[in-house]
Order: sequence, then C-alpha cells, then structure tokens
Amino acid sequence: MTQFMDVHHGMKGITADQLNQVHQADLAVEKDEGVHFERAWADPESGTVYCLSDGPSAEAVQRVHARAGHPADEIHPVPLSIW
Amino acid sequence: MTQFMDVHHGMKGITADQLNQVHQADLAVEKDEGVHFERAWADPESGTVYCLSDGPSAEAVQRVHARAGHPADEIHPVPLSIW
Repeated sequence: MTQFMDVHHGMKGITADQLNQVHQADLAVEKDEGVHFERAWADPESGTVYCLSDGPSAEAVQRVHARAGHPADEIHPVPLSIW
Repeated sequence: MTQFMDVHHGMKGITADQLNQVHQADLAVEKDEGVHFERAWADPESGTVYCLSDGPSAEAVQRVHARAGHPADEIHPVPLSIW
C-alpha cells in the first residue's frame, strides 16, 4: 500500500458540509478498490481540495473519486512522509 | 491560527533523509514566526513536496520556508479539513 496526495481544482466556495459530503461519498465506495481516504483539506477561496489516501495504485484512488462523482485533477504517490 | 498546505516543485529524487533535513530546518526557525510545521509528504518521482502547517498567515509560513532555504511555490490556506 502506498500513500497518495490528490488535488482537485475548481471547487471555489466549497463549504464544510460539502467537503464532508464528498468525503463521505468516497468512504462509501472506497472498500471496493482497497483504498482508504484518511484526510481532506479545502481552500474555498482558490477552490483547491487535497485528499490523503492509502491504496494499491493511483488508478484505484482515481476510480473511487470518479465513482463518487469528483475525479481528481492530479494524483501523486507520496511514499515519503514525516509527522 | 489557520492551517496551510504548501507545495514545492522541482525536488526530484528527494530521499527520506533529505525530507527530514528540510523539515528539521523549518522546525529550527518556525517559532520566530509563530508557525508550526506538522507534516510533510514527498513524491520523489515528480519532485513534489507538500507541507501542512499552522500559522498566522501565508506570508509567515513562506518566511519560515525561505529562511530555511526552500521557499514554497504555492501556499494555500486550508480552513476546512476532515480527518
């Protein structure tokens, strides 16, 4: 399993409720792909959303987002992390 | 205090040791600006690094990164988050 950071653009004005709704939509279908979405962050002003996930591949992460109705614009594996 | 996600490009081939070194360089000077760098993720293949921080402003976050020798290419406030 690899960690992935994906980025969505064009979500200007997203609210906390909407961010929660799209995250729940991911959680509802992620198990089929062996993916888990851990965290999400949103900048309503620029319309940027970042999602952190674990999964077998970027394609699997994208399939979850696509099935949930919001394909990502970029997906980067982030095998290195610090916290 | 606001959370910020910043992005660095052009760090192809970054290693775990190098990611740790740049993160430690941030931690060494962050207090002067009232910033705290919480986490960092790196994609050595595309050369992209993401940093999550708390701070008073994007400018303060950038001053820490600049003093540590690696100014960010993008800094987004992320007032909304889920985890």
